[in-house]
Amino acid sequence: MSQPIPRDDEPPPAGRAADPAHMRRAVELAARGRGTTSPNPVVGCVVLDASGRVAGEGFHAYAGGPHAEVVALRAAGERARGGTAYVTLEPCDHTGRTGPCSAALLEAGVARVVVAVGDPNPVAAGGAGRLRAHGVVVESGVLTEEAERGNAEWLTSVRLGRPHVTWKYAATLDGRSAAADGTSQWITSPESRADVHRLRAGTDAIIAGVGTVLADDPRLTARPSGEADPGAGRRLLRVIVDSDGRTPVSARVLDGGAPTLVAVAHDASATELEARAKELGRLGAGGAAEVVRLPRREPYGIDLHALLAELHRRQVVGVLLEGGPTLAGSFVREGLVDRVVGYLAPALLGEGAAALGPAGVTTIAGTHRLELEDVTPIGPDLRLTARPVPLKEK
Amino acid sequence: MSQPIPRDDEPPPAGRAADPAHMRRAVELAARGRGTTSPNPVVGCVVLDASGRVAGEGFHAYAGGPHAEVVALRAAGERARGGTAYVTLEPCDHTGRTGPCSAALLEAGVARVVVAVGDPNPVAAGGAGRLRAHGVVVESGVLTEEAERGNAEWLTSVRLGRPHVTWKYAATLDGRSAAADGTSQWITSPESRADVHRLRAGTDAIIAGVGTVLADDPRLTARPSGEADPGAGRRLLRVIVDSDGRTPVSARVLDGGAPTLVAVAHDASATELEARAKELGRLGAGGAAEVVRLPRREPYGIDLHALLAELHRRQVVGVLLEGGPTLAGSFVREGLVDRVVGYLAPALLGEGAAALGPAGVTTIAGTHRLELEDVTPIGPDLRLTARPVPLKEK
Repeated sequence: MSQPIPRDDEPPPAGRAADPAHMRRAVELAARGRGTTSPNPVVGCVVLDASGRVAGEGFHAYAGGPHAEVVALRAAGERARGGTAYVTLEPCDHTGRTGPCSAALLEAGVARVVVAVGDPNPVAAGGAGRLRAHGVVVESGVLTEEAERGNAEWLTSVRLGRPHVTWKYAATLDGRSAAADGTSQWITSPESRADVHRLRAGTDAIIAGVGTVLADDPRLTARPSGEADPGAGRRLLRVIVDSDGRTPVSARVLDGGAPTLVAVAHDASATELEARAKELGRLGAGGAAEVVRLPRREPYGIDLHALLAELHRRQVVGVLLEGGPTLAGSFVREGLVDRVVGYLAPALLGEGAAALGPAGVTTIAGTHRLELEDVTPIGPDLRLTARPVPLKEK
Repeated sequence: MSQPIPRDDEPPPAGRAADPAHMRRAVELAARGRGTTSPNPVVGCVVLDASGRVAGEGFHAYAGGPHAEVVALRAAGERARGGTAYVTLEPCDHTGRTGPCSAALLEAGVARVVVAVGDPNPVAAGGAGRLRAHGVVVESGVLTEEAERGNAEWLTSVRLGRPHVTWKYAATLDGRSAAADGTSQWITSPESRADVHRLRAGTDAIIAGVGTVLADDPRLTARPSGEADPGAGRRLLRVIVDSDGRTPVSARVLDGGAPTLVAVAHDASATELEARAKELGRLGAGGAAEVVRLPRREPYGIDLHALLAELHRRQVVGVLLEGGPTLAGSFVREGLVDRVVGYLAPALLGEGAAALGPAGVTTIAGTHRLELEDVTPIGPDLRLTARPVPLKEK
């Protein structure tokens, strides 16, 4: 943080000059909910008393739990009266599992509410209007970009009606994810692989192609470092894109350890897979399996828009696309990748499968342009985070 | 710099505790000679007076010019007596275009000499021995790694008897240097292309394969930013690896603007090329051309060890290998790449030529492992610098 936050023993900076610092703190608080609030957004809140001192902080910790504003107002108590609330997302105005935050702010007597991002959700929006109608000063647009980034998954889900897609890959400096003979363990370091598990733990579902299942038989679970039991982590939905139903019933993704969705084409023969799914259902394990039939669409064999629509219906907000190159290329071609996370190993192969397969680009002018958001060394490797150049900037 | 350098108005830190800070300054001074000292090393020198205050600084600026020690001793004058000299490379003990630095240090009455890297050059070595024989305290091993890195080209040249090779490439995040239709202008940004010109300006020769000449017809000259006239920069040697003599006589690399060496196989038919070389010689331009015949060796068509030996004979100390992928792969396979500089554009292609071609790796265990030395944003792109993991660490 570049700006200090006033403490009880320090004089508060004057008025609006302190807005960005308080909102930055609210964005930090919001991030603590990452991975546990889905299908809700992450939200952070800082409440100041009338003299500008921090009186309460809060964040939304899990779906069904109290909203960030309520947590912060509880901590502030009577000190909130005449004060200011910084909220990363426009306060909700509807009664879901909890009451509307707009009402809670009014009841606490807050005089000013600063919002980073307006609520695009038609069901919950309107909180700013109700507050204004009751004489509260509502200002927005403070640290909007940072707050949007922290809520990228949820905002994509609400705005586009499909899950936010992060494509993750691991490659050498020359862009290869496997050697000429197909071997790929391990291109990146143990540190990078641990980081991937943290990435998985923050998402709702992992998507892989049947090619990856056939080649590597991965488990596709999140095992954050220090957790011996994979079952102790969140049970992510494992999604296998498998147009012709070729996933073996003995595959680890059908081990019952986590729920699995196998997406096959509408006309695929998948009798054995469907039998295995029923069997897992009878076992009553935490990891049920389901075979879902989707429209066939070339070149990948399944309509990826239909796949994401199906996941959206299941309240999947963020997905991690883990490969292989053919499936990743199809997502890129369809404009369905919202974030790219690449683990680059300082190594050279010269031959072997590329990290990304055909993505509909034939000439240099058609290149999918991204912008780098973050570059972080992970052990001996480098982790790059990039996102497509926003349409308005193109 | 992490440690302060004592100024005249500050008390000097006690004795050896200040060694790393002074040597770091000497390494910085040495770097000012990069690109102009070849075939000599870069050298920096800091001279302290007897009380530990900086009395003089110097660096070797160009081949034939005064050595770093001489420049620093001149600046220090009588204050050098009883003082300490920090030198990034063991002082020479031979009389070349300038007298031996060991004698200059003795004459100035320096009491202690601290050396970062011993001189591996059998012709010039022995300075430390002569100094010790005359009662000077000589210590070595201070900041050796940093000083070696700054002199990587020259040290490789002396130790291995061949030029130091930097392979430079530009690629998308998925490791591609051209689109499916072969177009490649421009994958990286203007900032990255300007940086490549700075890289070229610091080397002695640029190597490219005939494939690159046929595809892009590049000029392969250094045009550091701000210089309108390409001729105003250094005239790098352009080296074309062209086993079958296919370089067109109309190619820009044969424009006479800079010297060019076309390396063909011993049995190649290169009559037109040789005629064009003679013609350029008659014109008396600064950019003569020469056709050199080298042993044929598959898969690349020319023995690359013989090519580097030929360049070594011509006092080429550092070369920049610029492509294409096939030639680069052959250099990597032969273990002839000492540094990799990659310009990564935040973009995805999915198809098109890979940055690196076959490099003799068939399975993941055979991967050419590197270590990252530096990661720097260049405009929207990322510049990665890596070097092979040293043999002793493998």
